[in-house]
Amino acid sequence: MSYVLGIDGGGSKTVCLLIDDKGKVLGRGEAGASNYQSIGTKATLLSIQSAIYTAVVEAQKLTDNIKIEAICIGLAGVGRPEDIEVVKGIVQELKNSSLLPITWKLSASNIIICHDALIALVGGVGYPVGIVVAAGTGSIVFGRNHNGQTKRVGGWGYLLGDEGSAYQIAVAGMQAALKAYDGREMSTSLVEAFKQSLELATIEDLIEVIYRRGWGVKEIAALAPIVDNVAAYGDEVAQKIIDDAAKELIKATSTVIEALFSNNERFEVVTTGSVWQGKSRIHDKFTASVLTMFPSAKVIFPRHEPALGAGLLALQSLTLPNL
Amino acid sequence: MSYVLGIDGGGSKTVCLLIDDKGKVLGRGEAGASNYQSIGTKATLLSIQSAIYTAVVEAQKLTDNIKIEAICIGLAGVGRPEDIEVVKGIVQELKNSSLLPITWKLSASNIIICHDALIALVGGVGYPVGIVVAAGTGSIVFGRNHNGQTKRVGGWGYLLGDEGSAYQIAVAGMQAALKAYDGREMSTSLVEAFKQSLELATIEDLIEVIYRRGWGVKEIAALAPIVDNVAAYGDEVAQKIIDDAAKELIKATSTVIEALFSNNERFEVVTTGSVWQGKSRIHDKFTASVLTMFPSAKVIFPRHEPALGAGLLALQSLTLPNL
Repeated sequence: MSYVLGIDGGGSKTVCLLIDDKGKVLGRGEAGASNYQSIGTKATLLSIQSAIYTAVVEAQKLTDNIKIEAICIGLAGVGRPEDIEVVKGIVQELKNSSLLPITWKLSASNIIICHDALIALVGGVGYPVGIVVAAGTGSIVFGRNHNGQTKRVGGWGYLLGDEGSAYQIAVAGMQAALKAYDGREMSTSLVEAFKQSLELATIEDLIEVIYRRGWGVKEIAALAPIVDNVAAYGDEVAQKIIDDAAKELIKATSTVIEALFSNNERFEVVTTGSVWQGKSRIHDKFTASVLTMFPSAKVIFPRHEPALGAGLLALQSLTLPNL
Repeated sequence: MSYVLGIDGGGSKTVCLLIDDKGKVLGRGEAGASNYQSIGTKATLLSIQSAIYTAVVEAQKLTDNIKIEAICIGLAGVGRPEDIEVVKGIVQELKNSSLLPITWKLSASNIIICHDALIALVGGVGYPVGIVVAAGTGSIVFGRNHNGQTKRVGGWGYLLGDEGSAYQIAVAGMQAALKAYDGREMSTSLVEAFKQSLELATIEDLIEVIYRRGWGVKEIAALAPIVDNVAAYGDEVAQKIIDDAAKELIKATSTVIEALFSNNERFEVVTTGSVWQGKSRIHDKFTASVLTMFPSAKVIFPRHEPALGAGLLALQSLTLPNL
C-alpha cells in the first residue's frame, strides 16, 4: 500500500497528515511554525519533522512498515524558484533523518512544493479546481481551472495589500476611531469599543498599545472582531469598513473568476479564514454579490483542512505525470 | 545678557540653537537622533548634550561666560505627563554635566518641554499663533490661537493614521501598482516607475524589498517622490493618490481652523515637510482649498527652523508668567 504526507506549514503551526492511497487519514500531527522566511530553515525543518513524527506514530497503531511515496508541502509565501530550492533542501534533510520511523521512496516528481493558497483550495474544495478566498490575518484569492491554469490576486502582505484581511479591518477601525476623536470624521462607537476591549483610559492610549508594546501583524489583526461587533450593532462607520472589506474581496474574486472560468462553467469558491466568521454578515454579502455576477458559482466553506489538500496533491503525483 | 537654548529633537537629528534675549542666534549645533522612546534616554541625553556643546562652542567666539536662563526642548511624540517627566530628568542631567562650558540659572518655569509640532509652528510662523501642517515621513496638524488654546489632528503614527504623509503616499502607490499588476484595477505607470527606481526584475519583487530587507517607515516614506513624479507626468492613478493626500491634509487643517479661529480672524498656516516639495502641485491644491474655505488665512512656508521656535518659547518664558 502507498502512503503519502500532506503538510501545511504556516506562521503559527504546521499540520501533517499521513494518508493512504485511498485518501484515508491514518495519522495527524501538529507542530510549531514553519514560515522559514521568518524563523529560518533549521526551525522550519524541526517543526515539519516533529509534525511528521506525530502523524507517523499515530499511523503506526494501524499499520507498520510505512513507506512514504510522495510528499506535498504547502508553505505561506513559497512561490519563487529560490524558495522552492530551500524547501527541497528541507525534504532532503527529512529523508536523511534517522529520527523518523519511516522509509522513503520518493522520486523528484513525487515531491510537491507549493504555496499555501493551493493546498487551501484543494483541501477546501476536495479537488484541485475552483477558487479559494482566504481572509484571515492576511488575504489572497487564488484559483485553478480544469486546464491547470492558475491566477492569484492579492496576498501581497499587510503593507502592500492584504485587502479585506482582518489586519486591514482592524487598522481601518482604529484609524476611524481616531479620526472621530480628532473631530474630523463622523463619530462612531468604535472609540468606546476599542477603549473597553483594550482597557484604555483614553483612545489616545492606542499609541501605547500599537507602537510601544511591539505588537505585530497577528496581534493587530486579532482586533478585527471589535470592528465586526460594532458593525453588527449597526454602527455606520464600522459597517462601512466591513462593506469595504467585502467589496475588496468581491473585486479580487471576480478578477480571478474572469481570468479562469467561462460563462456558465460550474466551479466552487471556498472561503477560508477568520474574517468569514464575522457577525456583521460579510459572508452573506460576499456570497450574494458573487452569485449575482457569476450564477454558475457555488460559495462554500472548506470541506477539509489545507493539509488534506496537500495530501491529495501528493496522491495525485503518484497517478498523474503532471498535475 | 540672557541666553537661552532652543532644542529640536527628532528621529534623525537634534538641533540646538543658542540665542540671546533679542532672538539673535549666536551658535548652532547638530547631533544624532533624540527620539528617546526608540533609542532610550541615555542616547537622547548624549545627543542633546552634544548639540548643545557644539552650539556653545560656536557662541563662545562671540561671548564668554554664557549663562543659560531658559531652555525649550521640543521632541517628537512627547505630550503625556510621563514623557515630560522623563525629559525633565534629562534636563537635570544636563545641568549636572561637567562637560558643558556654561552656567545654568534655570527655574522650573524656564524649562519648557513640548512636542515637536509646537516648536515647528512657532519657528515656522515666528510667533506662537497659527497652524502648522507637517507632512513629512509622518503627518500632523497642530494649531494655537491668541488665547493659547491648542488643537491637534492626526499625528497618530504610520499605522494609526498619518494621513497625507509621505509614508501613506508611498504605500498607496505600491498598493495601486500591485492592484494594477493583479488586473483588479486600472493600469498605471506606477508599476514601471517602482520597477525602475528600485531596480526590480518584476513588480512582485516589491515583496523582497519591503518585507525582507527590513525596511522601516523612513525608507518606505522615501519612495513617495516616485508617486509624486508619476502624478506630475499625468498618470491618473498616481494623481488620485496625491489628491487623496491633499484632501486628508485639507480636512485635518480645516478641523483645526474651525476649532481655534473665528470667521475673518487672520492667521497663518505654515506647511512643513517633504510632501510639500512635490512636483504634482499638492501645495497649490492645498493652498487654493484652504483659502477658498478660510479667506482670512495665509498659507506660508516656514520662516525659521523648529529649533528657533523652541528658542522663542524659551525666551518667552523669561518675560511671561505663562505662554
